[in-house]
This record gives sequence, structure tokens and C-alpha cells, in this order.
Amino acid sequence: MGQLNQISTGQSFGGTQGVYSHNSQTCDCEMTFAVYVPPQAKTQSCPVLWYLSGLTCSHANVMDKGEYRSAAAKHGIIIVCPDTSPRGDNVPDDDGNWQFGSGAGFYLDATRQPWKKNYQMYSYVTGELPELIAKNFNADMQRQSIIGHSMGGHGALTIALKNPDTFKSCSAFAPIVDPATADWSSGAFERYLGDDKTTWRQYDACNLIEDGNLFPHILVDQGTGDGFLEDGLRPWLLEEVCKDKEIELTLRMQDDYDHSYLFISTFMAEHIAWHAKHLGV
Amino acid sequence: MGQLNQISTGQSFGGTQGVYSHNSQTCDCEMTFAVYVPPQAKTQSCPVLWYLSGLTCSHANVMDKGEYRSAAAKHGIIIVCPDTSPRGDNVPDDDGNWQFGSGAGFYLDATRQPWKKNYQMYSYVTGELPELIAKNFNADMQRQSIIGHSMGGHGALTIALKNPDTFKSCSAFAPIVDPATADWSSGAFERYLGDDKTTWRQYDACNLIEDGNLFPHILVDQGTGDGFLEDGLRPWLLEEVCKDKEIELTLRMQDDYDHSYLFISTFMAEHIAWHAKHLGV
Repeated sequence: MGQLNQISTGQSFGGTQGVYSHNSQTCDCEMTFAVYVPPQAKTQSCPVLWYLSGLTCSHANVMDKGEYRSAAAKHGIIIVCPDTSPRGDNVPDDDGNWQFGSGAGFYLDATRQPWKKNYQMYSYVTGELPELIAKNFNADMQRQSIIGHSMGGHGALTIALKNPDTFKSCSAFAPIVDPATADWSSGAFERYLGDDKTTWRQYDACNLIEDGNLFPHILVDQGTGDGFLEDGLRPWLLEEVCKDKEIELTLRMQDDYDHSYLFISTFMAEHIAWHAKHLGV
Repeated sequence: MGQLNQISTGQSFGGTQGVYSHNSQTCDCEMTFAVYVPPQAKTQSCPVLWYLSGLTCSHANVMDKGEYRSAAAKHGIIIVCPDTSPRGDNVPDDDGNWQFGSGAGFYLDATRQPWKKNYQMYSYVTGELPELIAKNFNADMQRQSIIGHSMGGHGALTIALKNPDTFKSCSAFAPIVDPATADWSSGAFERYLGDDKTTWRQYDACNLIEDGNLFPHILVDQGTGDGFLEDGLRPWLLEEVCKDKEIELTLRMQDDYDHSYLFISTFMAEHIAWHAKHLGV
């Protein structure tokens, strides 16, 4: 496995759920991630679906509660679940703040001190980690898709919009579609990126679309019982800009669902089936 | 909801995953449990599948990692997940011992001091809790089945064998089939029940079958990569007594699976479908 440190593996739905760590040059710390390898990978290279998690999560939450392995095994898709931030004794943090620092990397490259040395999650998730996956797993990197939840939905949308040639499809559960103007995220953007808000636009899905970035297929599920809907998530802002730019967005408002993994797990198999179609499996 | 304290509820697969507590007279403490109510219960009473968890677990582990809601919603089955022991400041415990006390009630009624005041899990799971479920949910108590993992597999087997008229079917993941003679459980039996081993037989599946208890359908899955297989679980002992007594046991040895929820979740939907057949849904 080269430079990978295997933390655990277990058989699941005929494939293998593993947890690994490695010394990340991009984030300048040890980074942990989870990979599910479906049974099909024993005999052929398999497409990769990236799952980006939300605030406070590590790789482990969706691995435990996301219920993705059944569908991944059925369709023959590798699922990679990165952490949401750098971590460790040598990584600066803002203790007790769940919206900044550990667990809140926002999938951007920080430019401000003291954060910029480690908080390089955009480069990590789009550069260093895919290289590691390609090197260590039977992955067909010509077929990748991306999905995320909440802050990770923001990550999935912005990364797909900036890399439309890399990803075949993009979906999200309750994404933060316009983090630059949402109370629970704009403070983090200011501390990571400074107060010049033009630099924030590259990490904001609505702004990216306004600025001409395009992506062919976007699927979003949003629970109507989600406590963050009105202030933090506001999927209607994404709907508006997608309409203006003729991006094919399927936005499904799901009655009474909240922001939790009970919501995510309910629709996970449908999302994976939708990605499978775009990935050609 | 009468005497129930609702801790949380969330929409999931069209139904509701809830967590509740109540003041248990049987265990003389506040007891917590989880109930999944499928969408069908809005219009009709639904059968009940009891899920008994293993050592160290509470109601929460299988609720988070068991992946039972998809199949329960499909078949229209209520899933009840009790805790594995009494808990609380006023409940005696053996701190740091994961095989006795908190998280290790072994689904028996303790007869020894200081345990007998609270550790009455057999009576709790077969008496007080079913009454509470019948009173508070749209449950058809004429149709019940039972399933469990490890110590909870022991619970499911022994409870079904002692109550064959209550349960339509019984299954288990990696059950402790003969706890009276396994190192990791016999110590707990001695402390809960005393050193007269004849009193242990009513809580040991193999002994119960030897003593004439019968049950029509038993399904057991056991991973061959399970670290507890040889010393603690030993499903071949169950196979032997079932053969002697002509009990229909389906024992499936699952290649490379371990003792974790990765194993349980892989086969959960199959178990629920099997119970659904016996429950007539």
C-alpha cells in the first residue's frame, strides 16, 4: 500500500471497508480517510465516488451511519470519505468552535495565518488524495463523481463546478449553496481567506455559477424539517442561478426530513444509483 | 405517549426512528430504548421485530450502524432495540469490566446481591417493555419475532426457546450459543446467578434445547473471520443440539466476516426479509 497506514479493514457487502492514514504534504499533518472497495474491484478497475462530510464530522460518521455500502457493492463503485479538516497537536484550532478549525475546513485553501500552513482542504481533496487513491486502489480515475452533505455539499458543488472535466456527476444532501452570505459560514471564510470577498467567490457555488462555471448534472435533496434550511442552506438560491445559467438541477424537497444521517441514509441508495448511471455502471 | 419520555425522533425511510426512556419498575431505573416505526403503521398495526444487542452496546449502536430501516420500511415491521443492561448512578456496576454489569446484562434475571435489584433484563425484555410497546405504538403483538447479535444473539435464542408461542421466528448474528461454558460469559453467570449451575441452564440456548425446549425456525449467520468464533461463540454446539432435537436451524458460515456492524449490516436485510416471511408480511 506504499505510504498508506492501514488503520482497520473489514469485510462488508462482499467488499472491504477500510480506514487509512497518511502523512499529508498538502495539509502538513497526518490525515485519515475511509475507502470502501466493492467486490468488483477484485477483477476490474472501478469508478470512484467522493463523499464529502459536513461540519463536526470526520471520515467516520458517514462510514458508520451513511448506509452507502449496499448500493456501492451493487453498482461496483469505490467510495472515498476524506476528513473535513486537518487535525493534530501541531495544527492550529479554535477550540469549542464547531464552525471553524477542526472539523470545519470548508474544502478551501486558506490564505491567512496561522491557518494557511495546514488548512488546504481544496488542494488536498482535489490533488494529493486522488493521487494516493489512484496509486493504492483498483480505481478508474477517468470515472469519478462527487457527493456531499451540508458543508460537504458545498464542497461537492464547488469542486465539481471548478473541475467539470474530472467529475461525471455531482449531488448533495442539504448543501450550503452560498456560504459567503450565510451566517454560519461567512465568519470562517473571513478568517481563512481575509476580508477581500472577491477571493471568496471561488468557494461559493452560487458565485461560481454566476461567474460562468458550469456543470451538466446536479441532484440535491433537502429536508423540509431541516433546522438549518432558512438561514444556512437556502437551496432556492442555487435553484435561481442554475435557472439563469441553464444548468440542469434536480432539487427535491423531502417532506419532514431533518439534517441528520437518518435523512442522508434514506436517500443514499438513490443518489448512488443516479451517479452509477452517469458513471456508466 | 403515556409514561414514555421522548428523547428524539427523526424521519427515516418514510417512517420514524425514535429514542425513548421510561422509569422501569422491573429494573428499578430509567431505561432507554429505540423504536423504528415504518410508514405502514400510519394506517395499520404492524408486526414487531425485537433486536437485542451485544456486550458494551446500548440501544444506539444498532440504530446507528445496523442499517435495518430500509428493510423494515419495505416490509412494514416495527423494530424495537432495548438497552443491554440497567444503567445509572443508582445501579451497581463493575467499572471497566466490559463482560459484566453495565452493557452486559445477559438478558437474565439476576438472583444474587447486589445485582438482583436492577439486573432483571429477562423480565424487562419479555414483560415490561412489550407492554409499553403495545400501549404506545401501532404494534400487532400477535406477530413478534426476535433477532440479536453476540450476547444479544444469546438473548434472542434463549428468549425464543422459552417463549415459542410469542415469537414467529428467531435469528442471530454470531450468537453466544452456550454462555454457561464460555470463558467470556460464565463469570457473569456466576456473579448474577450464583454457583449452582443448574440455575444457569434456563439462560443457555444449548442447555434449553437439551432440556426439551423447541423452536421451529432458527437462522444464524456467523463470520469465519470473527475473533470470538472458537472460544466464545462456537455455533457448532448449537448445530449439534438442534440436530439431536430435530430443530430446523439454518447456520450460514460467512467467509471472512468479522464480529462488527460491518458484518451485521451486510446481512440485516436478508434477516428482516426472512422474519417478514414468518410474520406474514
